[in-house]
Amino acid sequence: METMQQQSAATVIYNREARMKSYHVQYGDGLESLSVKEHPIPQPGPEEVLLRIHANSLSYRDLMIFKGSYPLPVKPDVVAVSDGAGEVVATGANVTRTKPGDRVAVQMFPYWTDGPFALEHAAQIGGSLDGLLTEYAIVSEEAVVHIPAHLSYEEAATLPCAALTAWNALTGGKALQAGQTVLTLGSGGVSLFAIQFAKMMGAFVIATTSSEEKAQRLKALGADDVINYRTRPDWHDRVRELTNGRGVDQIVEVTGGTLEQSIQSVAIEGQINFVGRLDAGAQTININMLFRSCASVRVVAVGSRAQFIAMNTAIEANQLHPVIDKVFPFEEAADAFRYLQEGKYFGKVVISQRHVNR
Amino acid sequence: METMQQQSAATVIYNREARMKSYHVQYGDGLESLSVKEHPIPQPGPEEVLLRIHANSLSYRDLMIFKGSYPLPVKPDVVAVSDGAGEVVATGANVTRTKPGDRVAVQMFPYWTDGPFALEHAAQIGGSLDGLLTEYAIVSEEAVVHIPAHLSYEEAATLPCAALTAWNALTGGKALQAGQTVLTLGSGGVSLFAIQFAKMMGAFVIATTSSEEKAQRLKALGADDVINYRTRPDWHDRVRELTNGRGVDQIVEVTGGTLEQSIQSVAIEGQINFVGRLDAGAQTININMLFRSCASVRVVAVGSRAQFIAMNTAIEANQLHPVIDKVFPFEEAADAFRYLQEGKYFGKVVISQRHVNR
Amino acid sequence: METMQQQSAATVIYNREARMKSYHVQYGDGLESLSVKEHPIPQPGPEEVLLRIHANSLSYRDLMIFKGSYPLPVKPDVVAVSDGAGEVVATGANVTRTKPGDRVAVQMFPYWTDGPFALEHAAQIGGSLDGLLTEYAIVSEEAVVHIPAHLSYEEAATLPCAALTAWNALTGGKALQAGQTVLTLGSGGVSLFAIQFAKMMGAFVIATTSSEEKAQRLKALGADDVINYRTRPDWHDRVRELTNGRGVDQIVEVTGGTLEQSIQSVAIEGQINFVGRLDAGAQTININMLFRSCASVRVVAVGSRAQFIAMNTAIEANQLHPVIDKVFPFEEAADAFRYLQEGKYFGKVVISQRHVNR
Amino acid sequence: METMQQQSAATVIYNREARMKSYHVQYGDGLESLSVKEHPIPQPGPEEVLLRIHANSLSYRDLMIFKGSYPLPVKPDVVAVSDGAGEVVATGANVTRTKPGDRVAVQMFPYWTDGPFALEHAAQIGGSLDGLLTEYAIVSEEAVVHIPAHLSYEEAATLPCAALTAWNALTGGKALQAGQTVLTLGSGGVSLFAIQFAKMMGAFVIATTSSEEKAQRLKALGADDVINYRTRPDWHDRVRELTNGRGVDQIVEVTGGTLEQSIQSVAIEGQINFVGRLDAGAQTININMLFRSCASVRVVAVGSRAQFIAMNTAIEANQLHPVIDKVFPFEEAADAFRYLQEGKYFGKVVISQRHVNR
Repeated sequence: METMQQQSAATVIYNREARMKSYHVQYGDGLESLSVKEHPIPQPGPEEVLLRIHANSLSYRDLMIFKGSYPLPVKPDVVAVSDGAGEVVATGANVTRTKPGDRVAVQMFPYWTDGPFALEHAAQIGGSLDGLLTEYAIVSEEAVVHIPAHLSYEEAATLPCAALTAWNALTGGKALQAGQTVLTLGSGGVSLFAIQFAKMMGAFVIATTSSEEKAQRLKALGADDVINYRTRPDWHDRVRELTNGRGVDQIVEVTGGTLEQSIQSVAIEGQINFVGRLDAGAQTININMLFRSCASVRVVAVGSRAQFIAMNTAIEANQLHPVIDKVFPFEEAADAFRYLQEGKYFGKVVISQRHVNR
Repeated sequence: METMQQQSAATVIYNREARMKSYHVQYGDGLESLSVKEHPIPQPGPEEVLLRIHANSLSYRDLMIFKGSYPLPVKPDVVAVSDGAGEVVATGANVTRTKPGDRVAVQMFPYWTDGPFALEHAAQIGGSLDGLLTEYAIVSEEAVVHIPAHLSYEEAATLPCAALTAWNALTGGKALQAGQTVLTLGSGGVSLFAIQFAKMMGAFVIATTSSEEKAQRLKALGADDVINYRTRPDWHDRVRELTNGRGVDQIVEVTGGTLEQSIQSVAIEGQINFVGRLDAGAQTININMLFRSCASVRVVAVGSRAQFIAMNTAIEANQLHPVIDKVFPFEEAADAFRYLQEGKYFGKVVISQRHVNR
Repeated sequence: METMQQQSAATVIYNREARMKSYHVQYGDGLESLSVKEHPIPQPGPEEVLLRIHANSLSYRDLMIFKGSYPLPVKPDVVAVSDGAGEVVATGANVTRTKPGDRVAVQMFPYWTDGPFALEHAAQIGGSLDGLLTEYAIVSEEAVVHIPAHLSYEEAATLPCAALTAWNALTGGKALQAGQTVLTLGSGGVSLFAIQFAKMMGAFVIATTSSEEKAQRLKALGADDVINYRTRPDWHDRVRELTNGRGVDQIVEVTGGTLEQSIQSVAIEGQINFVGRLDAGAQTININMLFRSCASVRVVAVGSRAQFIAMNTAIEANQLHPVIDKVFPFEEAADAFRYLQEGKYFGKVVISQRHVNR
Repeated sequence: METMQQQSAATVIYNREARMKSYHVQYGDGLESLSVKEHPIPQPGPEEVLLRIHANSLSYRDLMIFKGSYPLPVKPDVVAVSDGAGEVVATGANVTRTKPGDRVAVQMFPYWTDGPFALEHAAQIGGSLDGLLTEYAIVSEEAVVHIPAHLSYEEAATLPCAALTAWNALTGGKALQAGQTVLTLGSGGVSLFAIQFAKMMGAFVIATTSSEEKAQRLKALGADDVINYRTRPDWHDRVRELTNGRGVDQIVEVTGGTLEQSIQSVAIEGQINFVGRLDAGAQTININMLFRSCASVRVVAVGSRAQFIAMNTAIEANQLHPVIDKVFPFEEAADAFRYLQEGKYFGKVVISQRHVNR
C-alpha cells in the first residue's frame, strides 16, 4: 500500500474485507451471460485510482454488447457497463488530478483527453477495458472527471455516455447558437439531455414522441413543440411547418432508422448529429435526398474528457438535474437490463449501490 | 408614387400632411447644436423603404458626436441618433425584404450584411448617413431587420447598437459556451444585454457595480455574482477569488479605462471584448500585463445584419425584454440626451413617438 | 443612357450595332433546344451593370439543364450557362462596386454575398436567372467579382462554378490545414482545382484516375499520389495503405456514385465534401458504413461572393492558372456541349468570344 | 533494467560508461552560472523514456533565464535549454507512444497535449522541469513527438519552441487562409518559420528587416515584399501602401516593442499574434489606437503536442527545412549563448553532439 497517498473512510471496508463483486459479460452471449464474480480489491498503480462505485447507468451500447452488435472490440469476460460514478478511495503515488474522497465519474474513452477523436483513443470502458458495474474499480487518473456538487451519484452516473453524447452533438461540430432550432427524437437518455442542454443554450426545441403523456413530460422538460409521430408519421412535414419551411438547424439523430426523415427536416447548412443506434443490418439512405437538403451529417462518438469537464461546469452553473426513469439495486442488475430492453423508459435507467454503501 | 408597391394605414397621414420633423446635430458643436427641422416626407427609391419611426434609443456614441470624439466620419447637419424602430409605410418597386406594415429596426451599418466587418461597411446610420431621430426615414431595404413580435417599438429601439454589440461580443469571436464565465462592467445598455444574453446561453455571470441597490437589480436580471467596485476597487482580485484563481472566460469591456483590470481578470485563453467607450485622450496599458494574461483582446464594432437577425431570433425564442431606464417623448429629446450624459441610468434611455403616433 | 456613368471603348460597338446574340435553352428539351436569338443590347438599371462577355466555361450543371435533372428552378427560355467573364461596359447610376473597363466574373448565386447559404440565396445565374452564353449581359452589381490580373478571360471564366466549389469544399466546412491529406476523384474541373488549391494550402494530395497518361498530368499538377481506379477498383483500400490506415482528412466527392467508397477512405473526424453530380435516380448508401467511419458528409453548394473574392486573392497571390482542356469559339457552342457530354476532358471546357471581340 | 522494453545500439554506450554530462544554470545568475555536471545515466520510470540527445537549439527564452526575466517558475540548478531532439534509447514498461530507435523531439509543455492552454499545462522543459542541454534526458512519454524523416537532428532541434510558436500564431487563433497577408518582423527563428509556413499555406508575406542583404535572404525564403525598417522607420505606412490601405490579416509580433506599429499595420478584423519577447520593464500601448484598428491582439504561448504533431506532418508533406544560422559543438555551449545574445543571427542557433555521437 506504499503507493497510495491517503485513505478515506471508505477504505476501512476496503481493508477489512478485501473482496469485491463485479458483473461480467461475454460478448454476444446475451443477458444470460451476465454473472457476478468475486475478486480481491486491487491496488492502484502509480498513475491509477481506486474507485468505490456508487451508481451506474445503462446505455443502449450495453445491450449491443449482449447482442454482439457493438462496433468496437470487447474483451472477453469484460466487467459490464461503461457508465459509473463513485468516490476515489485510493490513488497511486504519481496521481495529481484527484485525491481520496473526491466524487467522480469515469470518462468512457480514457485516452481521449481533448481535441478530435482519433484511432489512438479507441480503448473504451466497458468494452476493450473493464467496465464499472462493480463495487470497486481501478482506472487511470486520466479517466477521472469530477462531478457537479449538486448531483447525487445516481444522477452523475448518467453523464458519461448519454449526456456527453448530447453535449458533443450540440457543441462539438457546428456549435449550437441561442435562437437556433433543435430537433430531438423520442425519450431516451441522449434525447432528454439534448432538450435540457439546448434550452440551457437558448435554443428553440422541437421533440418527437409517441404519446400525449410523454409529450407533456417533454414540454415540462423544456421542449417548445412536441410532435406525436404516431399521429404524424410524416413528422418531417410538421417540422417544416413549425419552422416556416426552413427546417431545423440541428438534429440529434439517435436511431439511424429515421435518418431519411431527419434529412427532410433539416435546414440548409443545418447539421444532423448522427448518434447512430444502429442495430438492424444494412440500412440505406437516398443520397439525392442528402444532396438536396444541402446539410451535413456528422457522426458523434461520445466525447473527450475536456468536453466532459466543460459539460459538468455547464450542468453545475445551470443546476440541471438528469432525468432518471428508474433506479435498480446492484443485486437486480439483470432486471435493470431487461427493463432497458423493453424500451419504455423516459430518461435513464440507473443501478445504485447506495443501500449497500450507506 | 408609382414606385411604391403598397400603402398601409400609416400612409394616410403621410399623404395628408406631407411634412415631417427631424432632429439634426452639428458634429462637435455640443448638445446645443441639436435642432428640429421640417422636411417634406421623402419617397423611397426602387430599393428603398420609408419608415414611420416610433421609438429611438440613445447610445454613448450619440454623445460622442456632440462632443466631436467619434472615430468615424459624420456628415454635416446629420439627422441624429443611430438607433430606431418603426413601421414600414412604403417600399420601392424592387424591394423584396420587407413590406408595408412590417415592424422593423434599422441596421446601424447598412452595408455590413454578413461575414466580418470591412472598410466597405463603414457607412453608418446617424454618422455618415442620416440617423433616425425623426418622424419618417428613408433607408435601404438592406438595412431593415424585422423585430421580435413580443417587443414594443420602445423595446426594439434599444437593439441596433447596444444589444447587437453585446451579442457580437459574446458570439462573434470565441463563441461563449454554456458553463463559461462572463464578466460585465456596470449598468449601461451593453452590459445589461450581455448579462441577459450570457444567462440565456447558460453562462455564469459576474457583474460589477457601484451600489448595493444596483447589485440587487443586476442579480434580478440574472447575474450570479456582483462585485461593488467602490468597496472592492481591486475587483480583479475578487474576480480571481470567485473563479478559483482561473479568471473569467469572456469580458465585455465597455469603458476602456478599466482595460488593465480586465486583463488581470481574464482566464488563460480567455477573451476581452473591447467595446471601447474611449473618451479621454490616449490611455495606455502595460503590455507585459497583456502578455502574462495569455489572453486575447478583441475590438467589437457593433455587428452585421446577419448577427442582428440571429440575435432577434434568440430574443424571441427566449422571450427576453430589454431593460429600459426611462422613456422621453420625442419633443423632449434634448432632456433625454442630458439624462444620458449624467450617466445614472440602469439600462437604455429611450425616446418615444407613441403618444403622437397613437 | 442618363443612368450610365461612363463608357469604355467596348461601348462603341455597343452603340453602333445595338443588337446582340444569346444562346437560349429549354429546360429538359436536350441539346437540340439550344438556339441563338438576337436582342437589343439592354441598359443597366441604377444598381445594374452591363457586361461584354468574353468567355464562358461549361459545367455539368449546364448538361443537367438540357437533361431536365437540375434540382433548382430554371426559367423558360433561359439564356444558357452559369459561368462567364467579361468587361464592364456600362454601370447604373448607383453602382459603386465596379466601373467600366473592369475585368470581372459573375457570382453564380448573386444574392449569396457572405455567410452561409440560405433559401433567400437560391436565385441562380443560368437557372432562375439568365445565364452568360451571350454577347452582353445585365447583372446586378452585387454579382460582379473582379478577376485576378494574371488570368485571361478564358481562364477567369472557369472560376464561378468549378473553382469556387473546390474552394468552398476545402475551406468552407472544416478548413483544410497544411499537412492534412486530400483525396480528389478524376479529372473534372472541380477535382483539378481541388488539387491545385490543396497543394497551395500545403496539403498532401491523393488523386484517382483511369489512365497512366492522366496520372502523369495529375502529378504534374501537384498530386502526390495517384491511384488508377481501373487497376485498383478497391481504391479505398489503396487510400488506407497510403495513409498508414488512417484515411484522408478531406475528400472532394464529385460524383455521388462513389460515396460509399469515399466513406471507406475517410479518416476519423474527416470530412467528405459532397459536390454531388447526381444523375441516375435514387442512389443509396449504407448508413452503418457512415457511422463506422465516424466522419462528416457535408453538401457543398458552390460558394458565396465573399468566398469568390477570397479565392481570387489566393489565386493571384499564388499565380495559379486554371487547367483548360479545350476552347471552342462562340459559334460552336453546341460542339462544346457535345464535347463536355463525352466526358473525356481533363480540366475545363471553355467557349471564347476572343476572336470576335479582338 | 527490467522496466525497459528494448535496447538499441545507442544503449551500448549507455551501459558501458554509465555517466553523462549536463549543462546546468542558476536562474538570474547570468551566463557565468552555466556549468557542466556529471551524473549517472538515469533509468526511465514505467511511463518514461530515456533519450540520447543529439542536438539543441537556443531561444530567447533561454537568455531570459540567465537574466532572471522569465515569466514562469524555474527550478534551481535546472538543466538548461528547452529545445532538443534525439533518439529514444530506452522506454518504461508502460510506454506505448514510442520505442527505442525512434527519432524524436520534446514537447516544451509536456502536459499540454491538445486543446487550449491552461494553468494545468504550465510545467515546462528547461524551466520548472529539467531541460535538454545534456547527453541523456528522461522525459514523460507524453512529451515525445516524432520528427520528420527528412530532417537532421540539428534541424529538428529547432522545432519545439520557435517553429511551434510560429505554427500556433498562424493556425491557432483565426487560422490563416490562402491569399491572406502576413507580416513578419526581423530574422529570428519564429519569424523565419512564420515566413516558411505562411508561404506553405498560400499566403502573401511581407517581412521587415534591417539590411538589404537580409532582405535578399528573406525573399529567397519566400517573402513577397521586404521593408527595410532602417530606411522606413514608418514601416507601418509602407505596409498600408503594399496592401492598398487595408493592412495585413495576420502579424507575428515577436518583439512587443513594436506593438503600436503592428497595431497600425493590421487590417480590420485582422489578428496580431503577440509572441512577446518582453524584456525592458513596463511597455505601454495607446488603447485608442487598438480600438481604431478594430483588430485582435492574441497572446501565443508556444503550442500543444497535437499542434506539434500537425506541424511536423505539414513540414514533412512540404519538405520544408528550418533555417539554421550556426551550429556549435556541445562543448562550446557558452559560446553559442554569447552568439545568440549578440542578436546577429538569421535563423536558429544550434548546438550539436553529432561529432561526439557519431
